[in-house]
Amino acid sequence: MSELRTRALACRDAAPAVAALDAGARAALLRDMAAAIEARGEAILAANARDMEAAAAKGVQGALLDRLRLDAARVAAIAAAVREVAALPDPVGQVTRRETRPNGLRVERVRIPLGVVAMIYEARPNVTADAAALCLKAGNAVILRGGSEALHSNTALAEALHGALRAHGLPEAAVALMRDLSREAMVELLQLTDVVDLAIPRGGEGLIRFVAEHARVPVIKHYKGVCHLYVDRDADLQLALDLLLDGKTSRPGVCNALETLLVHRDAAGAFLPMAGEALRARGVELRGDERTRALLPAAGPATEDDYAAEFLDLILAVRVVDDLDEAIAHIRRYGSDHTEVIATRDAAAAERFVHALRSAVVMVNVSSRFSDGGELGLGAEIGISTTRLHAYGPMGAEALTVERFVVRGEGQVRHPLRRD
Amino acid sequence: MSELRTRALACRDAAPAVAALDAGARAALLRDMAAAIEARGEAILAANARDMEAAAAKGVQGALLDRLRLDAARVAAIAAAVREVAALPDPVGQVTRRETRPNGLRVERVRIPLGVVAMIYEARPNVTADAAALCLKAGNAVILRGGSEALHSNTALAEALHGALRAHGLPEAAVALMRDLSREAMVELLQLTDVVDLAIPRGGEGLIRFVAEHARVPVIKHYKGVCHLYVDRDADLQLALDLLLDGKTSRPGVCNALETLLVHRDAAGAFLPMAGEALRARGVELRGDERTRALLPAAGPATEDDYAAEFLDLILAVRVVDDLDEAIAHIRRYGSDHTEVIATRDAAAAERFVHALRSAVVMVNVSSRFSDGGELGLGAEIGISTTRLHAYGPMGAEALTVERFVVRGEGQVRHPLRRD
Repeated sequence: MSELRTRALACRDAAPAVAALDAGARAALLRDMAAAIEARGEAILAANARDMEAAAAKGVQGALLDRLRLDAARVAAIAAAVREVAALPDPVGQVTRRETRPNGLRVERVRIPLGVVAMIYEARPNVTADAAALCLKAGNAVILRGGSEALHSNTALAEALHGALRAHGLPEAAVALMRDLSREAMVELLQLTDVVDLAIPRGGEGLIRFVAEHARVPVIKHYKGVCHLYVDRDADLQLALDLLLDGKTSRPGVCNALETLLVHRDAAGAFLPMAGEALRARGVELRGDERTRALLPAAGPATEDDYAAEFLDLILAVRVVDDLDEAIAHIRRYGSDHTEVIATRDAAAAERFVHALRSAVVMVNVSSRFSDGGELGLGAEIGISTTRLHAYGPMGAEALTVERFVVRGEGQVRHPLRRD
Repeated sequence: MSELRTRALACRDAAPAVAALDAGARAALLRDMAAAIEARGEAILAANARDMEAAAAKGVQGALLDRLRLDAARVAAIAAAVREVAALPDPVGQVTRRETRPNGLRVERVRIPLGVVAMIYEARPNVTADAAALCLKAGNAVILRGGSEALHSNTALAEALHGALRAHGLPEAAVALMRDLSREAMVELLQLTDVVDLAIPRGGEGLIRFVAEHARVPVIKHYKGVCHLYVDRDADLQLALDLLLDGKTSRPGVCNALETLLVHRDAAGAFLPMAGEALRARGVELRGDERTRALLPAAGPATEDDYAAEFLDLILAVRVVDDLDEAIAHIRRYGSDHTEVIATRDAAAAERFVHALRSAVVMVNVSSRFSDGGELGLGAEIGISTTRLHAYGPMGAEALTVERFVVRGEGQVRHPLRRD
């Protein structure tokens, strides 16, 4: 048996112990994990320094290097996030529906953990603690496969988590950090159908494609966010401008940032010059269709690829559309099912936009940047699903459980027999 | 482009029209489908006669041949089942949660259709109508791939469904019956990740393994039901006997029939002789461990394979266990996550059984034969999921939808900017 399989089976065997904890014990475990991260802050920073050196030596720089970097404030934020998860409502055992059937059967739908969740992610070390905390909160064991660049940081974080597991009499295998898996070992992990109940890839398009291609276990993809703002004929243009600037410039590198602006032709003449000026003042490069460029001569031409792009940068694709239908058709064609926003004062147009699109999050007069588990009331998120199954949109602890049936009765049978 | 892909894309393109129907129009469509099945009853029976002849010529017989066979009563039952689905509550657009955030965002979770569901099934022609009805009820388009033995029957049924689609101005492609797919074409269908949102295989173990092995689209498996009855020390033995006889003998060929009986050693002396006699009177073959055979000398020996088997026949594996923990360990080891029953008067033992097992349906003093969508209040079922994701246990129309987020506001942004 491969070492990977041995460790994965140990994780699976640890899952019932996590599931069996009551809500109070699970919360205490997570609080102790947060404390352990704080207590080991120096060791975590030292490990991170090794990762940073190795990355710098390999020529990594800019945003990638920044995502890898930890400092005291970031370690404190990681611990605080784990504490927030500890304080969330416990989803395990929640009765979501209850019905007594005419024959007296008492039927309940009750949330239970999924079992073993495998997180496959890239450079950010905070995902190690975030994902472990959310999976444990929902009563699951977790297999973590972080990026090799963050190996030392992730290992130091996992050691803190393991200390808390031991202190609670739980097997360390409940949080199984897989170190530096080869491509072949990754494929093996993704095909452990008797161990892994759900794989969640988080990272660049390449990683997610790799997981989708090789997985035999269920996968919920957290794919790119090509988020749209459609400014309707009847939009409040100042409100639309607020949504545009917040969506595009408040944090351009995240998946809920805006990538494409669609403007009704009747609003374009008033909106685009104003928007173009504000965006240029914030360093945003514009790429538009012909009608856009007629109003914004400084904008470059937009290609098909631009409309499908997740820029994650200060670049915005722009298009003038004839009407709401054309905006909907554009989003259906180029969108990634993540988050779409309409700015309008026309309630009927808003409802048509909401109903015609099947993206995970559809918003009316709200910034796309609120497409986030914390902002939408989940408390924390393990990612934003663009898979239209099980969970769609921001996923919190509840999305790491499933409802099953518990039925109680007094000896009911379907076909009563005479006793011989 | 292959013919399969062309037809699958047409199905995908038909999905928004189904999703856009309101609840009343979808119900009317389904009622008209039921009427169309009745109106074409003779053509359906004639087509079925061709399938039956071909099957008989190939040597098919017994239960398999019976599952293929239609008669006037079965056609009427198919139409009645479609009418029942028409009368169910419409899940599309249901608001499952509603919250106003402190910043005024109004966040709703709303059910939307999955999109395109691919049903892969075997000989029973009624699945063609049942699956189409449930998928359409939930606003989905559906790709149907039935068994080649039922090709003419399925085609005649699909023609009836298509007539109703046309009468409602909907594309026939919303119900796409794929005729006689080769193995290669099946694999192609299972990898159409840009078309198929969910594949549901229903049939024998071989079919389900084939689908699981080749699918790149999400799959919810409807795998075997190795259902257990555990008779606890404190069980009401007459009640336990009722559950046993109903579970094993009322319809042994279905997935919610009992396959294994576990008996607490303190109850075995009183229960097993009584149970053995009643089962033998009904023609049930028993296969037991040594302690069972000491009490029931006529029972054959049980192998490891017997404990893992879905007999679907009048055969029962039996084992005497030391206590509840051993029963739980046995079910964890040999079970298929389908349905488990405890017979007990001990409330604490019942709760331990419920919590320790993570099967889709766990029952206390109830016959396993109630593990069925209709019996548990779903109205109808497309199958019983043993995949612990999205839906677990009997799946009704609601399980063919997913919740997404609809957010409404008045221009809220995450990082208010001064306007320049």
